[in-house]
Amino acid sequence: MEIVTVNLGSRSYPVCIGRGILADLGTLLREQHATAGRVAVVTDSVVGKIYKERVVATLTAAGFAPWVIEIPAGEEHKNLAWLAFLYDKLIEGRIERRSPLIALGGGVIGDITGFAAATFQRGLPFVQVPTTLLAQVDASVGGKTAINHSAGKNLIGAFYQPRLVVIDVETLTTLPRREFLAGMAEVIKYGVILSPDLFALVEEQLSALLHLTPALLAAVVKTCCQLKALVVEEDETEGDYRAILNFGHTVGHAIERATEYKLFLHGEAVAMGMAFAMHLSQQRGLCSATTKERVCRLLKTAGLPVVIPQTLTRESLLLGIEADKKVAAGKVKFVCIEEIGRTRFEHLTAQEVMGYLRGGIRHAGGGH
Amino acid sequence: MEIVTVNLGSRSYPVCIGRGILADLGTLLREQHATAGRVAVVTDSVVGKIYKERVVATLTAAGFAPWVIEIPAGEEHKNLAWLAFLYDKLIEGRIERRSPLIALGGGVIGDITGFAAATFQRGLPFVQVPTTLLAQVDASVGGKTAINHSAGKNLIGAFYQPRLVVIDVETLTTLPRREFLAGMAEVIKYGVILSPDLFALVEEQLSALLHLTPALLAAVVKTCCQLKALVVEEDETEGDYRAILNFGHTVGHAIERATEYKLFLHGEAVAMGMAFAMHLSQQRGLCSATTKERVCRLLKTAGLPVVIPQTLTRESLLLGIEADKKVAAGKVKFVCIEEIGRTRFEHLTAQEVMGYLRGGIRHAGGGH
Repeated sequence: MEIVTVNLGSRSYPVCIGRGILADLGTLLREQHATAGRVAVVTDSVVGKIYKERVVATLTAAGFAPWVIEIPAGEEHKNLAWLAFLYDKLIEGRIERRSPLIALGGGVIGDITGFAAATFQRGLPFVQVPTTLLAQVDASVGGKTAINHSAGKNLIGAFYQPRLVVIDVETLTTLPRREFLAGMAEVIKYGVILSPDLFALVEEQLSALLHLTPALLAAVVKTCCQLKALVVEEDETEGDYRAILNFGHTVGHAIERATEYKLFLHGEAVAMGMAFAMHLSQQRGLCSATTKERVCRLLKTAGLPVVIPQTLTRESLLLGIEADKKVAAGKVKFVCIEEIGRTRFEHLTAQEVMGYLRGGIRHAGGGH
Repeated sequence: MEIVTVNLGSRSYPVCIGRGILADLGTLLREQHATAGRVAVVTDSVVGKIYKERVVATLTAAGFAPWVIEIPAGEEHKNLAWLAFLYDKLIEGRIERRSPLIALGGGVIGDITGFAAATFQRGLPFVQVPTTLLAQVDASVGGKTAINHSAGKNLIGAFYQPRLVVIDVETLTTLPRREFLAGMAEVIKYGVILSPDLFALVEEQLSALLHLTPALLAAVVKTCCQLKALVVEEDETEGDYRAILNFGHTVGHAIERATEYKLFLHGEAVAMGMAFAMHLSQQRGLCSATTKERVCRLLKTAGLPVVIPQTLTRESLLLGIEADKKVAAGKVKFVCIEEIGRTRFEHLTAQEVMGYLRGGIRHAGGGH
């Protein structure tokens, strides 16, 4: 087992990464949270079916009394109505102020459970057990919690750090292939914005990664967590620097929104958003065509989409960018790339961003 | 104008106290928040009628573009449904991530607006303009925000510090008499738990205070804010010490709950709770009968109730104490008094607390 510590003063916490360590969850929690007692586990109908019993067993063995709450799987349940359901269930289960709340599942479960943990009784100890690649490399570090509003994704939320994160890379073996690939988009993102080494490793070892070689997976997940921890330690509440993590997300979110979150997984939309951002960076003379093509090639080889479909109109994407919660004074802080590992913010209006949809972005994948 | 600074590192903020300073709100906000622009004001139907125009005028004069949101007055609106209404209105008003959110009103408005500020877009700059005595001496310092749940008061919330608090004691002239007196209960509380000087001042100057002598009011409000700031600085998120502020609140909350929040104002219930806590303290040999009687006498002279009505059954109060979110491992940290200005925690079960309802608490007011 490897441990990455996220250093945030009194809110510091360990991210434990390993193979099969779901079985150690009870012991790990006991180490962090001295008194055994009531503990709530929130999961969804799909993940719960596979891992619920195992989690209940390890918690019970460590002296906890688990109370499992299940919500239906899917982003459409990450809303105020299901949050209210969680609150009701926490009350029904007599969850007290110091009872830990464990999120067992992907990003949706982590986000809504984290927000419930942040707000029930003004804050319960929160534990993340992410079971998707996306959640392991992204949501597990940083303390962003949220629910969606009909007007936009993650519009309601809080910064709330977990006390403990337990990442068992073996849970990725039960993850649908398409979701695994979508998670790879965020792995590639860390390489592009922060680490030429990680980028090169993924380029070289892509086939082994896609075959879920466990030691390699654990190493890559650990590197991503370390990189994200460095960013979050620098800027916990997204004052400025942390925004580099939004690389590919401005247009990615707009694509998700324009397709009502139905057509693409988050990582797929971000892949197209990254390809677009590389195109924009190159067009503005910030990076070379070679760099742009290298990024697009890796995304494509990893089985990710890089071309924004023709069916998406410019107007619908424009609306999505304008609705972005990172808009300040009408401008979006667009993350550009100078070279692999080096970013630069450009303050652009939604109109300016969409200007780059002309002239080739429909073919941003390059290579032809 | 006097300023009390609440020192919480990067979350420090000024509490401005004075007569007629509502007219300076725009300027004060401008000093704290360099860029003018959109600003949201949340108020209720009663306070809005009196102060809305004045607030819009001062904000507009300072270059802001105010967007006023009104919700019906009353504790019964401090819930998830009206929070959802606030979110919708913030979106409708195109409130951005850095737009300040101003709470103009009493505790209900401060609590729900603060929670909306804490969670909309993961946190907007929050400004408090409390217009009741209770909100001025209590809610304005400390960053507790919350909404109610059918299972209990303030069960959902967050610790979220404001950026600025503006207290105009002249707003107290339009406050209903009964509400003003209820606020006095919290003023007396600060004296009992923290300051023999404040307690003696209120004893001596009670008549002038009840006549709303402005300079005296401003001085007393300032002292209360200073005292609360000292407590909050010591223990921001109620790890331990901050719980002294719950003096009178364990039983006070149980009374409110047993009467469905309809019969008594919060301060009135707390007054009865404080009388009960004095009785309990004396019965356990922690304080003298003289100290107990001195506290009960001041409460009574201030026009506050000190006797728990016979109509409230022990069972209903017991349930209320058990539902308290401060219960840990089945025990409540009950705040006792050793002498004026000196507290002591007793860890008691709800049953133990209610044991003191026997033998005289129905007459806790003493004096006969």
